Amino acid sequence: MPKKIRLGILGGGGDSLIGVLHRVASHINDNYEIVGAVFNPVYEENIGFAKEIDVPTDRIYKDFDAFIEGEMKLPKEERIQVCSVQTPNFLHFPMAKKLLDNGFHVICEKPMTTTLEEAKILQEAHKKAGTIFALTHTYTGYPMVRQMREMIKSGALGKIHKVDARYYQGWINTIIHDKEKRSSVWRLDPEKAGISSCMGDIGVHAFNLVEYTTGLQVKSLLCDFNYLYEDNKMDVDGTVLVRMGDHVKGVIRGSQVATGEENGLAIAIYGEKASFRWEQEKPNFLYKQSDTEPTQVYKPGHAYNSELSLNGTKLPPGHPEGIFDSMANIYLGAARAIRGEQYNDGEFPTMLDGVRGMNFIEATVESHKGGNVWVEMES
Amino acid sequence: MPKKIRLGILGGGGDSLIGVLHRVASHINDNYEIVGAVFNPVYEENIGFAKEIDVPTDRIYKDFDAFIEGEMKLPKEERIQVCSVQTPNFLHFPMAKKLLDNGFHVICEKPMTTTLEEAKILQEAHKKAGTIFALTHTYTGYPMVRQMREMIKSGALGKIHKVDARYYQGWINTIIHDKEKRSSVWRLDPEKAGISSCMGDIGVHAFNLVEYTTGLQVKSLLCDFNYLYEDNKMDVDGTVLVRMGDHVKGVIRGSQVATGEENGLAIAIYGEKASFRWEQEKPNFLYKQSDTEPTQVYKPGHAYNSELSLNGTKLPPGHPEGIFDSMANIYLGAARAIRGEQYNDGEFPTMLDGVRGMNFIEATVESHKGGNVWVEMES
Amino acid sequence: MPKKIRLGILGGGGDSLIGVLHRVASHINDNYEIVGAVFNPVYEENIGFAKEIDVPTDRIYKDFDAFIEGEMKLPKEERIQVCSVQTPNFLHFPMAKKLLDNGFHVICEKPMTTTLEEAKILQEAHKKAGTIFALTHTYTGYPMVRQMREMIKSGALGKIHKVDARYYQGWINTIIHDKEKRSSVWRLDPEKAGISSCMGDIGVHAFNLVEYTTGLQVKSLLCDFNYLYEDNKMDVDGTVLVRMGDHVKGVIRGSQVATGEENGLAIAIYGEKASFRWEQEKPNFLYKQSDTEPTQVYKPGHAYNSELSLNGTKLPPGHPEGIFDSMANIYLGAARAIRGEQYNDGEFPTMLDGVRGMNFIEATVESHKGGNVWVEMES
Amino acid sequence: MPKKIRLGILGGGGDSLIGVLHRVASHINDNYEIVGAVFNPVYEENIGFAKEIDVPTDRIYKDFDAFIEGEMKLPKEERIQVCSVQTPNFLHFPMAKKLLDNGFHVICEKPMTTTLEEAKILQEAHKKAGTIFALTHTYTGYPMVRQMREMIKSGALGKIHKVDARYYQGWINTIIHDKEKRSSVWRLDPEKAGISSCMGDIGVHAFNLVEYTTGLQVKSLLCDFNYLYEDNKMDVDGTVLVRMGDHVKGVIRGSQVATGEENGLAIAIYGEKASFRWEQEKPNFLYKQSDTEPTQVYKPGHAYNSELSLNGTKLPPGHPEGIFDSMANIYLGAARAIRGEQYNDGEFPTMLDGVRGMNFIEATVESHKGGNVWVEMES
Repeated sequence: MPKKIRLGILGGGGDSLIGVLHRVASHINDNYEIVGAVFNPVYEENIGFAKEIDVPTDRIYKDFDAFIEGEMKLPKEERIQVCSVQTPNFLHFPMAKKLLDNGFHVICEKPMTTTLEEAKILQEAHKKAGTIFALTHTYTGYPMVRQMREMIKSGALGKIHKVDARYYQGWINTIIHDKEKRSSVWRLDPEKAGISSCMGDIGVHAFNLVEYTTGLQVKSLLCDFNYLYEDNKMDVDGTVLVRMGDHVKGVIRGSQVATGEENGLAIAIYGEKASFRWEQEKPNFLYKQSDTEPTQVYKPGHAYNSELSLNGTKLPPGHPEGIFDSMANIYLGAARAIRGEQYNDGEFPTMLDGVRGMNFIEATVESHKGGNVWVEMES
Repeated sequence: MPKKIRLGILGGGGDSLIGVLHRVASHINDNYEIVGAVFNPVYEENIGFAKEIDVPTDRIYKDFDAFIEGEMKLPKEERIQVCSVQTPNFLHFPMAKKLLDNGFHVICEKPMTTTLEEAKILQEAHKKAGTIFALTHTYTGYPMVRQMREMIKSGALGKIHKVDARYYQGWINTIIHDKEKRSSVWRLDPEKAGISSCMGDIGVHAFNLVEYTTGLQVKSLLCDFNYLYEDNKMDVDGTVLVRMGDHVKGVIRGSQVATGEENGLAIAIYGEKASFRWEQEKPNFLYKQSDTEPTQVYKPGHAYNSELSLNGTKLPPGHPEGIFDSMANIYLGAARAIRGEQYNDGEFPTMLDGVRGMNFIEATVESHKGGNVWVEMES
Repeated sequence: MPKKIRLGILGGGGDSLIGVLHRVASHINDNYEIVGAVFNPVYEENIGFAKEIDVPTDRIYKDFDAFIEGEMKLPKEERIQVCSVQTPNFLHFPMAKKLLDNGFHVICEKPMTTTLEEAKILQEAHKKAGTIFALTHTYTGYPMVRQMREMIKSGALGKIHKVDARYYQGWINTIIHDKEKRSSVWRLDPEKAGISSCMGDIGVHAFNLVEYTTGLQVKSLLCDFNYLYEDNKMDVDGTVLVRMGDHVKGVIRGSQVATGEENGLAIAIYGEKASFRWEQEKPNFLYKQSDTEPTQVYKPGHAYNSELSLNGTKLPPGHPEGIFDSMANIYLGAARAIRGEQYNDGEFPTMLDGVRGMNFIEATVESHKGGNVWVEMES
Repeated sequence: MPKKIRLGILGGGGDSLIGVLHRVASHINDNYEIVGAVFNPVYEENIGFAKEIDVPTDRIYKDFDAFIEGEMKLPKEERIQVCSVQTPNFLHFPMAKKLLDNGFHVICEKPMTTTLEEAKILQEAHKKAGTIFALTHTYTGYPMVRQMREMIKSGALGKIHKVDARYYQGWINTIIHDKEKRSSVWRLDPEKAGISSCMGDIGVHAFNLVEYTTGLQVKSLLCDFNYLYEDNKMDVDGTVLVRMGDHVKGVIRGSQVATGEENGLAIAIYGEKASFRWEQEKPNFLYKQSDTEPTQVYKPGHAYNSELSLNGTKLPPGHPEGIFDSMANIYLGAARAIRGEQYNDGEFPTMLDGVRGMNFIEATVESHKGGNVWVEMES
């Protein structure tokens, strides 16, 4: 019997960027085989894409309902075990919900839902289902992000007292400064893109990293967005003051108009004893700083790294692994969980991360619209 | 007749760090000669220090009043022309005021005063005096900071829409986490150190750089401090949301508990067309980023640099100049102004920078104490 | 009919590092399917590994001869099309030879053979076979290495006059300084590892990059090895002076005792007009330097990049791809060639690179043993 | 009585780059006062320059002979104590010789002489004189270079087994590729510039750093120059294989045609236990690498630094000091020696460094001209 986990794909067809990322990631550790999919809403394109990537077409369904129906008819040992949801954001919720309700494991792109309310409903569905739910906050898969988490957990920084994260991109400049374009692009249309552009798309990643690495939760926040133009309805930039409890404060910054920035996610965590700095575009370098000792540069694959970090590295030190490998690490963790093996809870983001992410996004909007006031996050 | 400008020094004796910075800077371009001073409140130490650095002792005065009295008795062509004020913060105002009132030029350490009110009084005194007043915001002297200013002025970034500056240090960690120390050190005693520690000492530098490089003014701000402990009265960390007018927003971050950071002043300015990034600890590298072109790394001493930048470089490209050279550039600009020569208004920070700096510091305190509310700055 | 190319694997089983690299790389662009293999000389392990990675066991052969025999019996449309040779070095030649003689395409790990003589025999066999032969000099697959090649080809540097490459590692320190270990490890046993350790294993990569990026050939070289100990027979460090024709000179440096270096491959190419610098451990940053302009930092995925470079990138700028992606780019190029599609000759290293590599290795040994004299390379 | 050492200057007038470097450096620690000089061979310019920098003109002499004559007539307590030689290279020897013969201390620019023979004569003269002789290999004054030296001395790297240094510049490109210019510029005229351009001007600095930091001596070397054009007589590029004794090898690379490099001096020292890497253009970052531990980044001004390093820092960590401060550290060391105070022999390069430097330059020329053969250095 094949050992690989039977994987279904929803979305991600054609030249979808997220599609190639998930597909490659699912292959990397020889754990998954794609056996069924709805890559694309247009059936011909759907089938065409399956052929292009050499997936058998017999379980390429015409739509999601057919997918569920078809798979549920199959005996359990043939049925898809886990489904990867890579569709447009507004479909994450209904698809994930139905998948969970039918007993599938789910790997879901972020944002998990479009509202916090949906997120909570999904959370309930997940509790009932008892299956595995992994949210692909891709950046948590980097070995050096995991190293931060483990070292912080084991006390390397002492008590955390300050966090500072940013996610800066510049690509929306080419749209936002053109009146025609900014009024027509779906990204900046609240009807289509939801309540937030910058925070919803990227700010939430920075938020997630802060909670993932520190193990602390943001308790309350105050946010100021920048829309750049009166006629623009969506945040393209924002700064969020955060409080994580007893004198632990920080700032999360997001921007899609940080001209010339590509995918500038970075995080710094300051504790009583030491601090960490890490940047996504140089993912294999982690800086541990102290007031009295030379800065230390941690790199992947060394015996000095934590097990969680080492699990995320395939080659010896100095052979740079990147974002595909990072996503693959999340798939690897999910595979372990799906197979009922032991795993570290840092191996993949969960339902809870999804709920908190939606809470964060809604809270930033509420804070900004309320005149930059403090908003409590749910605990 | 000696060509050098006759310089008086107030403060900066013994192993004062600020003292050596000013002294070396004043020498670097052969423009100043120290002819009189009150280095130290204790007369013996004052004289001793003068001998140590080989300044003639005949114009080493026992205190500031004696200094003024003694110098005013001298014929104009012998009298000190400019006085450099390097005393503890609370003395800046009374000394600078009396110096201006007596017709001296003044080079003054920051913060210029301890309150905005004092700053405005000094501004009036300066108007009356008509002499030169240079405020030593040292970091404006770096060639690459000047390059930013000139290129922004000439439109290299297009319309600015976002600023992001930080000044992170970690040295106060060794004090703040010790109950005994934090209650005894003068830095954290509002009676002695004024209304703000972090913003007053370093945040104001970041604020100054933002205004210096962009040519824009902060219109309003919202600030959240972190005191870390209930029994601590002074900000040791803070984040400031700023608005610089029509959809131009940004953030200024300061910290003295950013563990492991040494003198982490950094600035990023984002415009419609391009952006700049610069870090004080690698002062000779200026990054110009665009969404469509390779990032460009500007370095000092090249023909492609602006005149203001080139004036601040003494050796060909690749010979790193540092913070002493940066301060020397401010002294150089002041020398030109004192001699009545042509100079670029970016050659040294002025009274206006001092007034705005005090306004910034007071506004951050007001915002924080008011519950993190928006506070208008004066225009 | 499946679209994927039928791939056979020789070697690479168990926890082989090279095995995972090839396997992942072959998957990444959905071009290959592993249909047969001899992963391991021990049949049980061979089968066991196939199961572990979910390759059907019906075409897992007990050894290479059985592999050839079995495959040749299959009809052409089922038969393996290309075979990836990942066995220990001394097996590359006999396997690749027999594969070519039987009409297979070959993807071969480096060093291609153990001697130049073998390399030439293989070259002849390849000419006769007329199939595709790709040598996996992995580092040529990086987008920024390809960008260098294309820009140099189009004249961005002007006439090249100097090259400087290095490949520094430190891992052999833990062996070499221990008399017991250094006399027992196969790497340092000429009987098992061939004539060169440092140059054969890593120096040749640096050599290959120099020729790949410049399009020039090394004409002659002079080499000095360091063995570190009298009783050690293998080079663990060496410096090679190279001449690439008319006043074009340079140096290639290799070391396995460069303590603390991980996988420190770096290259600098200097031309009349400009230069390039690139480092393998930060593969997504390419520096173009000029004497008169700001240094430019090229990154992958931008419209300003060459087609050859862009073909090697799957995600937008700022999403770091790494060494698995680099190897995947070589597999992608080979797939195009195997399918008879158009391809750029920079998409994968060829037989000629293999022959030149062996020539380089032998020449360095000859030069060193001859007393550090100039040795001509064949043209 | 003034405490400052009475300093004479030979050369360095007008817009001499070396002049400003020495002058500023001599001021920085309040140890020297310029009391006499021959800044310039043209007397009017000499006097004019003295006025410009405010040096009293009464001891501005018309030429070197007048300088010696005039000073020797003065009573010892008024006479110049140390003379700084900053004239064109060919004058270093006769001036330094006469100064030593007359009992002066000497601070001398490099290259110390134009031949090894002269160097040895000077060495003899120095022995007789018994005064202090400091050679301004500026780069030894950087705190992090000193830190390397001290840590290596105390065994941080274990036994050294490999060195790798380079000094790459690109500025001669604008001359060398123009037939007219390259035949007329003094730099490339052996009559005027001596036997070597690249090695004599910059390669020797890299050589000096290797010996300064390791405490080892180069025993023999093999060199290949690049002249780039048939009609060019001077090396503009060269690579030097070096042997430093028992299995300790390395390479020193110099270039003036490394296009786009500014002042690219860098050094790496590899030992059994660890290694150091340092680059002149980022002088305040020293990397200590190990095969098993995270890389450590040393920076100036920390308590963890050696005393020799800390003596070279005036401000707390994070306040970048540069090349003027580095030269000042050499002047500071010389001052201590001149005053008969205790000093560390790493505080300034000496006569021995000068002799070895000339030996190195001549040996590289001999090796290249002899057909790239090994040449022994004198011990």
